[in-house]
Amino acid sequence: MVVMRAIVSRTDPPPPLGEGVAWSGGCAYPSRREDAVKILVLGGDGYLGWPTAMHLSAAGHVIGVADNFLRRQMVMEVGSGSLTPVQTLHERVRAWRDLSGTELDLFVGNLVDAAFVEDIFKSFRPDAVIHYAEQPSAPYSMIDRKHAVGTTRNNVEGTLNVLYALRDIAPETHLVKLGTMGEYGTPDIDIEEGYIEIAHKGRKDTLPFPKLPGSMYHLSKVHDSHNLHFACRIWGLRATDLNQGVVYGIRTEETELDERLCTRFDYDEVFGTVLNRFCVQAVVGHPLTVYGKGGQTRGFLNIIDTLQCVRLAVEHPAERGEFRVFNQFTEQFSVRDLATVVARTAEDLGINVVTEHVPDPRIEAEEHHYHATHTKLLELGLRPHLLTGEVVGHLIQTVQRHKDRILRDPIMPKTKWDPRS
Amino acid sequence: MVVMRAIVSRTDPPPPLGEGVAWSGGCAYPSRREDAVKILVLGGDGYLGWPTAMHLSAAGHVIGVADNFLRRQMVMEVGSGSLTPVQTLHERVRAWRDLSGTELDLFVGNLVDAAFVEDIFKSFRPDAVIHYAEQPSAPYSMIDRKHAVGTTRNNVEGTLNVLYALRDIAPETHLVKLGTMGEYGTPDIDIEEGYIEIAHKGRKDTLPFPKLPGSMYHLSKVHDSHNLHFACRIWGLRATDLNQGVVYGIRTEETELDERLCTRFDYDEVFGTVLNRFCVQAVVGHPLTVYGKGGQTRGFLNIIDTLQCVRLAVEHPAERGEFRVFNQFTEQFSVRDLATVVARTAEDLGINVVTEHVPDPRIEAEEHHYHATHTKLLELGLRPHLLTGEVVGHLIQTVQRHKDRILRDPIMPKTKWDPRS
Repeated sequence: MVVMRAIVSRTDPPPPLGEGVAWSGGCAYPSRREDAVKILVLGGDGYLGWPTAMHLSAAGHVIGVADNFLRRQMVMEVGSGSLTPVQTLHERVRAWRDLSGTELDLFVGNLVDAAFVEDIFKSFRPDAVIHYAEQPSAPYSMIDRKHAVGTTRNNVEGTLNVLYALRDIAPETHLVKLGTMGEYGTPDIDIEEGYIEIAHKGRKDTLPFPKLPGSMYHLSKVHDSHNLHFACRIWGLRATDLNQGVVYGIRTEETELDERLCTRFDYDEVFGTVLNRFCVQAVVGHPLTVYGKGGQTRGFLNIIDTLQCVRLAVEHPAERGEFRVFNQFTEQFSVRDLATVVARTAEDLGINVVTEHVPDPRIEAEEHHYHATHTKLLELGLRPHLLTGEVVGHLIQTVQRHKDRILRDPIMPKTKWDPRS
Repeated sequence: MVVMRAIVSRTDPPPPLGEGVAWSGGCAYPSRREDAVKILVLGGDGYLGWPTAMHLSAAGHVIGVADNFLRRQMVMEVGSGSLTPVQTLHERVRAWRDLSGTELDLFVGNLVDAAFVEDIFKSFRPDAVIHYAEQPSAPYSMIDRKHAVGTTRNNVEGTLNVLYALRDIAPETHLVKLGTMGEYGTPDIDIEEGYIEIAHKGRKDTLPFPKLPGSMYHLSKVHDSHNLHFACRIWGLRATDLNQGVVYGIRTEETELDERLCTRFDYDEVFGTVLNRFCVQAVVGHPLTVYGKGGQTRGFLNIIDTLQCVRLAVEHPAERGEFRVFNQFTEQFSVRDLATVVARTAEDLGINVVTEHVPDPRIEAEEHHYHATHTKLLELGLRPHLLTGEVVGHLIQTVQRHKDRILRDPIMPKTKWDPRS
């Protein structure tokens, strides 16, 4: 375990690192709000974790970030890289201090190491934990047995360690855990937010919504959801599971402040999401690769809305014993819809684009019913930022600005859900 | 990995152990039935695994057994032991050969070791796999974080390795996996067999039955079920999940042949089940310890019916791509009902018994709706052996025969679901 205070500002007292725990000077920050919350962002070096940490810090909360840089390592493993030049977490924490005058506590280690988790909880004493620290790629989990088992172990055991640390060290702390809309799969009925009332043989009960996860990654998230539900039912913990759709965009109020604060942008077949990939393909003159018929429909949201949602969840915590599930997205699109939007926007910018249907490397329905409820975050105050032509235009322009960094090899799908197919 | 041919009979050709794989002489056995199936019993040293191996061997099938003796190790860890004197697996395999003239292939190793799993599949080439090889105790999984994570890893990763071996080496092989009725918990509607048709907002779909598992062990089984379902949906594997109730009894046609063939009988708070514990308490003059109000109702079955059910599943395999779920029990009882049956039978045998309500160490409903469908195995031909006074009487007499081996310390509940309670 490496625990460190990222930067010790000149006026801070020296941290007692000799004790093997991080010094947390949170309460001493002069800018702390009256109702400020101490928030630990697990996975604080990631695509969403880093912007979340800055956003909540800017909102006056006291922030700690933990990461083991697994995402950077995995992206290197598959031969890809972020389109945007991402600084190290230490450098970003330093830049954020320079710009905001606010310190973030930094913890480097692996959640699968229970001692590391316990040490953070004991030293930082969070009021809320935002848990992004999981292997987030479906294709990565489907590479082979080793990657499937590795994803399961990393995600499920890491989360179990967090649940036990909450139980034993911080039972009042609110866990905000990132789940995924992909846990539900594509059932032939409308998807509800975590639970569904079932009438059956003259009786009724409200039960967890049945799950049809479509990859080893999605399975690991379903396992997490069951474990969280148990911890709330049996130990009385409080948790919010944010079943998030596909996030796009890299522009937030805080990332715009300085180039050093930007977040990662992945576009490869393993870690990139479909909208990013289409924008990169448009810029490099590659046909937009629609998997199969392109009728696969999913929920999407702007990164700005991810930050809003996570903040709403933290500032309106679940009750003791409550396992709350919110579906976190603002719009539904099919893959075909997205290809059309990107092609149209690119043409407005003078880029000629063609669309190509390639065999779907995944095993999934290419035409299906999809209607998912997503009202709970709206009721808490979410104000959606929708996918306009302007938003897509900005994404394409961002890609153009970094065009010389694009790697072509990792774009086309190679990871098949069934290696015999 | 230790791979060995348990006993080489004098007329068999010598096994080519130099290759590092077990020699499988299955096809050469003169007694092999025309429709014999090569069956690999994972967890073949266990309470049910060993009687299953003998039963299917006696039925003319060709049997391999695999185990790493984890159960024996865990029982030692908690300071307990089998009431019945259980021979080593090697000794039992030898005794079975002496009595039946039939050889079992023996594989010693851990399913979490993928290379071990792959080696068995490549050398034994099973037509069917019966998978009992999991940490089977809810209290053991609830001891602490380490036991929870250990249970998860052992059960989920072991099963993942089996699924990948099936996919890559034996995609036609039928997996018969032991699940548990405890995966469902106690919902306020009737429990169906694995799936439920849900009508919702004008549409209908048949989806996995929602799960409310009540311990880390039960969670691991729910995770397995999702992983199995995925492997059938995505890779076209064939699997039967036997959601078994609580099994009682140790007498089967084969265990009765010779004392050396008997199976284990656990009665402690960690590995013993409620009926066993009550019989032991009756014999040693301890009050029957009913947890809480004793209204906890579950499905139960005789070990003889476990063997029947598993055999029915193996001899009527699932289709390619089918994930079949059977609820495997024959009767429902509350804990109070069982205490009454044991007390009455004990009194008929001249033993005076009192019942005591002790605080429930688990967090569970003590009075609840419980009605679970269990018709699919009956439709395949299951003929139930019910819990008669005679059956309980035999159990008590078995305990009396081994009375001097009873350890009193491990009987009373110590493992709490919530350590702060």
